[in-house]
Amino acid sequence: MHTPRDLRQALTGLEFFRQMMAGAIPPPPFVALLGMRIVEADFGKVVFAGDLTDAFYNGMGVVHGGYAATLLDSALGCAVNSAMPAGRIFTTVDLAIKYLRPLHRDVGGLRCEARVIHAGNRVATAEGRVVDAEQRIYAHGTTTCVLVGEKAGT
Amino acid sequence: MHTPRDLRQALTGLEFFRQMMAGAIPPPPFVALLGMRIVEADFGKVVFAGDLTDAFYNGMGVVHGGYAATLLDSALGCAVNSAMPAGRIFTTVDLAIKYLRPLHRDVGGLRCEARVIHAGNRVATAEGRVVDAEQRIYAHGTTTCVLVGEKAGT
Amino acid sequence: MHTPRDLRQALTGLEFFRQMMAGAIPPPPFVALLGMRIVEADFGKVVFAGDLTDAFYNGMGVVHGGYAATLLDSALGCAVNSAMPAGRIFTTVDLAIKYLRPLHRDVGGLRCEARVIHAGNRVATAEGRVVDAEQRIYAHGTTTCVLVGEKAGT
Amino acid sequence: MHTPRDLRQALTGLEFFRQMMAGAIPPPPFVALLGMRIVEADFGKVVFAGDLTDAFYNGMGVVHGGYAATLLDSALGCAVNSAMPAGRIFTTVDLAIKYLRPLHRDVGGLRCEARVIHAGNRVATAEGRVVDAEQRIYAHGTTTCVLVGEKAGT
Repeated sequence: MHTPRDLRQALTGLEFFRQMMAGAIPPPPFVALLGMRIVEADFGKVVFAGDLTDAFYNGMGVVHGGYAATLLDSALGCAVNSAMPAGRIFTTVDLAIKYLRPLHRDVGGLRCEARVIHAGNRVATAEGRVVDAEQRIYAHGTTTCVLVGEKAGT
Repeated sequence: MHTPRDLRQALTGLEFFRQMMAGAIPPPPFVALLGMRIVEADFGKVVFAGDLTDAFYNGMGVVHGGYAATLLDSALGCAVNSAMPAGRIFTTVDLAIKYLRPLHRDVGGLRCEARVIHAGNRVATAEGRVVDAEQRIYAHGTTTCVLVGEKAGT
Repeated sequence: MHTPRDLRQALTGLEFFRQMMAGAIPPPPFVALLGMRIVEADFGKVVFAGDLTDAFYNGMGVVHGGYAATLLDSALGCAVNSAMPAGRIFTTVDLAIKYLRPLHRDVGGLRCEARVIHAGNRVATAEGRVVDAEQRIYAHGTTTCVLVGEKAGT
Repeated sequence: MHTPRDLRQALTGLEFFRQMMAGAIPPPPFVALLGMRIVEADFGKVVFAGDLTDAFYNGMGVVHGGYAATLLDSALGCAVNSAMPAGRIFTTVDLAIKYLRPLHRDVGGLRCEARVIHAGNRVATAEGRVVDAEQRIYAHGTTTCVLVGEKAGT
């Protein structure tokens, strides 16, 4: 049986995410737990979507910052990896989030669009934004990722 | 009926978190969903705890970065607010996380210890670390918070 | 005699930076010391330029990270303030820089292009990039700024 | 003739910085230009000092954010490298600064104390603070560094 990580050794990042969108690779557990899903994947660009519920609130009557952080971490990391060949896996070493507006249930569906800024041999960066259906922005962020996996023979 | 936010208008941040630890104020939904809880609160210092499960994994066989981001965002924001009087509420505008080591289920229980660095009139900062039972560090982060609520008459 | 700060109370951010470009307001001392200058200013967008010399090197034979940080801090802060009315002054509380490639003397002239992402009542964010003449990117960054000055009567 | 970078191939980071403090290795040009100097070096901990002058001001009557960024970038990068053996050189990929209070000339001498938080095989992080003679804090920051140089044979 192949784990998603095994599959990522055999597929480019973009093939991997497209198979996930097609249902051939299961979504990551944490992302599934929070009802998030990958909805677009191109070379260097990935979009995640999510829907707000009461379960994501913090103690002050707004959505917990960890929710947008998770959405951004997912989209940013996938954007970096969508630009990588088979077996070349980058992991996040730095995640920085700016919170612009409180998120409430009635904001409805969110999209998190992330794009690679730079993909080097060992270090890559990406930026992303959390927006609602009217492209109103609630949070944005950047990531730095470093190479962790390299397939034997490449 | 009083919401937690109403209570925070009447209690200092430290009283509020101590009542939450005592069970008199319900834990925030998102924190409860992820099995996290506040386990220590002092003036300017807060500790959260959490336990790793399969449900928190990402697609690469390690815990999703959003998990540590949520733990840090919780502890950092509460550390700032633990130093605030009744009705004076700060919200996070910036959250920056460094990921040092992958988190696996078998790491067991985690603690996230956060402390205020600076608490000004309108801006406050804090730092925190995610560690295991042996104080081995997995992630650390900082936050910037700004004043959003000020009780009438204060 | 009017200080630049006095003038900023009377001018919009954009007018202020345009008078600086026209030579009617002196450039900030630190920016002048490093040979940097503002070369474009629009509402919410500012470009700084600089030229690399041996004086900016660190001990490892490349330009010191503080140089790009200064260029970005200048452009990001001005981008935010270029979107502000007279007397409304924002200051930087958070500056985050990603370094992508080493800078050498022979890179030649640099541009740092910064744009506002969000300008709220009390908090604003911006992003910027340090590029050479071929738009090759060397560093990028984001800032969070907060309101510090508000003219009497506004 | 040996460049500082050549020497760093032959010396541990700590030996290198101690020779710099002793005057046997010239200070980095940018640091010298701004009057900054390394004043303490231990394994994993470095302190820089600097003195404020009018030349470091921005256009708003306070010291430019690039000054503290340069001080922090110097101290943080050296703190990481002070924990590295000969030939093992780390460079900064991420620098994040929090500005807490405005810096004025009359603050007098500043110290920037930086410490390693984590030194891994390929990634290291450090934190630092800019303080005055009374340990009043003006800015703090963190860095992520990655391995760039590795001496042949080590």
